[in-house]
Amino acid sequence: MRISVLGGDGYCGWATALYLSAKGHSVSIVDNFARRQWDHELGVQTLTPVQPLSVRLKAWQELTGKTIDLFVGDVTDYDFLASTIQAFSPEAVVHFAEQRAAPYSMIDRKHAVFTQVNNVVGTLNLLFAIRELQPDCHLIKLGTMGEYGTPNIDIEEGYITIEHNGRKDLLPFPKQPGSFYHLSKVHDSHNMMFACKIWGLRATDLNQGVVYGTLTEEVERDEALINRFDYDEVFGTVLNRFCVQAAIGHPLTVYGEGGQTRGFLDIRDTVRCIEIACLKPAAPGECRVFNQFTEQFSVLDLAQMVQAAARKIGLMVDIHHIPDPRVEAERHYYNAKHSKLVDLGLQPHNLSDSLLDSLMNIAVKYSDRIDSSLFLPRVQWRSPRNDRQQPRAEVATVTLSEDTLLSERE
Amino acid sequence: MRISVLGGDGYCGWATALYLSAKGHSVSIVDNFARRQWDHELGVQTLTPVQPLSVRLKAWQELTGKTIDLFVGDVTDYDFLASTIQAFSPEAVVHFAEQRAAPYSMIDRKHAVFTQVNNVVGTLNLLFAIRELQPDCHLIKLGTMGEYGTPNIDIEEGYITIEHNGRKDLLPFPKQPGSFYHLSKVHDSHNMMFACKIWGLRATDLNQGVVYGTLTEEVERDEALINRFDYDEVFGTVLNRFCVQAAIGHPLTVYGEGGQTRGFLDIRDTVRCIEIACLKPAAPGECRVFNQFTEQFSVLDLAQMVQAAARKIGLMVDIHHIPDPRVEAERHYYNAKHSKLVDLGLQPHNLSDSLLDSLMNIAVKYSDRIDSSLFLPRVQWRSPRNDRQQPRAEVATVTLSEDTLLSERE
Repeated sequence: MRISVLGGDGYCGWATALYLSAKGHSVSIVDNFARRQWDHELGVQTLTPVQPLSVRLKAWQELTGKTIDLFVGDVTDYDFLASTIQAFSPEAVVHFAEQRAAPYSMIDRKHAVFTQVNNVVGTLNLLFAIRELQPDCHLIKLGTMGEYGTPNIDIEEGYITIEHNGRKDLLPFPKQPGSFYHLSKVHDSHNMMFACKIWGLRATDLNQGVVYGTLTEEVERDEALINRFDYDEVFGTVLNRFCVQAAIGHPLTVYGEGGQTRGFLDIRDTVRCIEIACLKPAAPGECRVFNQFTEQFSVLDLAQMVQAAARKIGLMVDIHHIPDPRVEAERHYYNAKHSKLVDLGLQPHNLSDSLLDSLMNIAVKYSDRIDSSLFLPRVQWRSPRNDRQQPRAEVATVTLSEDTLLSERE
Repeated sequence: MRISVLGGDGYCGWATALYLSAKGHSVSIVDNFARRQWDHELGVQTLTPVQPLSVRLKAWQELTGKTIDLFVGDVTDYDFLASTIQAFSPEAVVHFAEQRAAPYSMIDRKHAVFTQVNNVVGTLNLLFAIRELQPDCHLIKLGTMGEYGTPNIDIEEGYITIEHNGRKDLLPFPKQPGSFYHLSKVHDSHNMMFACKIWGLRATDLNQGVVYGTLTEEVERDEALINRFDYDEVFGTVLNRFCVQAAIGHPLTVYGEGGQTRGFLDIRDTVRCIEIACLKPAAPGECRVFNQFTEQFSVLDLAQMVQAAARKIGLMVDIHHIPDPRVEAERHYYNAKHSKLVDLGLQPHNLSDSLLDSLMNIAVKYSDRIDSSLFLPRVQWRSPRNDRQQPRAEVATVTLSEDTLLSERE
């Protein structure tokens, strides 16, 4: 199958491109290296030493004999994006090419506006390009479980049947996103549903949970193929951050009570979900929604699991509760459905001790690259302007010495 | 009260600014004259000869002794917008400064992207400016009833209590907007709810129905104050267009079956609703939603009412059904709640024979300005690219001669 991966140099995109290539699909990557640029802007680095894309692609070709086509450019540039569709004629486009960090979108007005314009315009461009040039192409778009927020009812997959005053209808599930980034994904979802309706496009909106892990079968084949492992307060995901903190004996920093419960999945399942969506496309005119995660955990659950995994290799770490920089419920009901991908054949990798051990091993292996000044949150949701230029050490000291800071030691 | 009217040179904005000024409020207008520019782009003119804003404001001052402050600039330019908030210190900002025509947003990709970026960025800028400079200021934002689409259940005012699997929650009403423009308003609504939640802002989202009429007590005082009366296929609203068609004996052009049912209101109620919202502001942190319309009609209902009003002044007109350029249900359930503004004191002007007579009189009075080539739809929802540069006469002939065209004559 001909599959174009937009954002194929990023964390999920790279793993997906290699997996699909290994499976025998004809793959192209479209990327403008914005993700690498944001690292420079923020003064952060992935834990793992990722290679330039040109090096990665050459290594992949040498190992497997498979080539991945590369188009370098910005999806918000319609002429560029359209040229990639014309040149590659994809049967499916997997769209990861968005700014995907909630804290980045909350830095200040410019970052909020950038995130929404970048994400919304990129997706609008893609909808128009598919309609104009490749109308049977299946759009597989990465959304987020964060679109739903934390309602006090079960979360369905995209749509819910509502009975009201004696009538009923199947309607889009109400959205309560928690950052300007999450809002951009809600905007995309509405735009996609409409485009499918008026133009008969086929689309799958994957509301993905929080992804953890860095190793997939493909990237393990050579150090040059290694994937990102982000642990900083802006782009890092929570489980990665806890592992890195544990590796250097730093307290695990839980935001608030830690009762925030979310859907999580292993990156090895991300790539499989994408292939399942490609192989079993939406029907023309259909905008289907899958909740793409495998297990629910609270943030405190994860901290305790990492604490236990660390102890096994002789690392004793505390769990610290620090003031929540976000505006979110710290305890809440959460029950999100996620059966559609399983029905289509997904066999989940659950978060096991052995996976946690492997994550800890990576964190320890690269521990000389860990910058502990990147752990603590410097982007506060309640502030419209977060100055990330002030010296980090000060912030860390101030935050850790606040009275609200609690400590839990087993 | 100090009230800033963004988009105060437009149709609703101008009527609102004068009404609030007449009521004794201290009013400023912020406008970049984009609406006048779009007339030039499309080659259309309002039926009524509107004067430049400088002339309008001078006439108002001479008639009443009241001044309205003017800030000329674009709300997507944050520095400009912030400077108006700083200079005027509004207690309420009424935000009409958006691209508000569904067909305009459906012309092609550039118009879709422009509409969403313009509207979303303007509103984001306003939320940040209020948060940073005037956090107690009440934001009154014009949304649209079109955000809801036409669900098969009663439409509530912004939020709905959903019972599901034995639990319940009050959640945002699901949205099914029908154009890239309507989508932009849905995006705005989500952004506003979030900003109120994280920053404690106070906001009222007015989901307005289709506005008709041109005369308010204020604009009637002098010809120089006259308001817009748009009847073209892009910016014209349906009742205005029917009146203009009747005035020159042109068949009333109903899209499809004409069973499309919507909420409508008199522009004299628009201005009163805005003042009610100003005087009874939302609480800090509250993003309340009012459905701002007074009556429901189907498009065919309106055509028949105009046909009858025309007959009274000796004008016999047919009703033609032409293919619907939009993708929408031509018959559907529709029952939208609209009691919150009435509860706060709104006394509606219902659509009466006398109002219709007055609209017909305006259409007849200015009939030498009517361009009948502007009546027929040239923007098709199903096409991603509508070339509005082709000669109009051709389009008109082709469309009217299609076999699907039906005629109803009483």
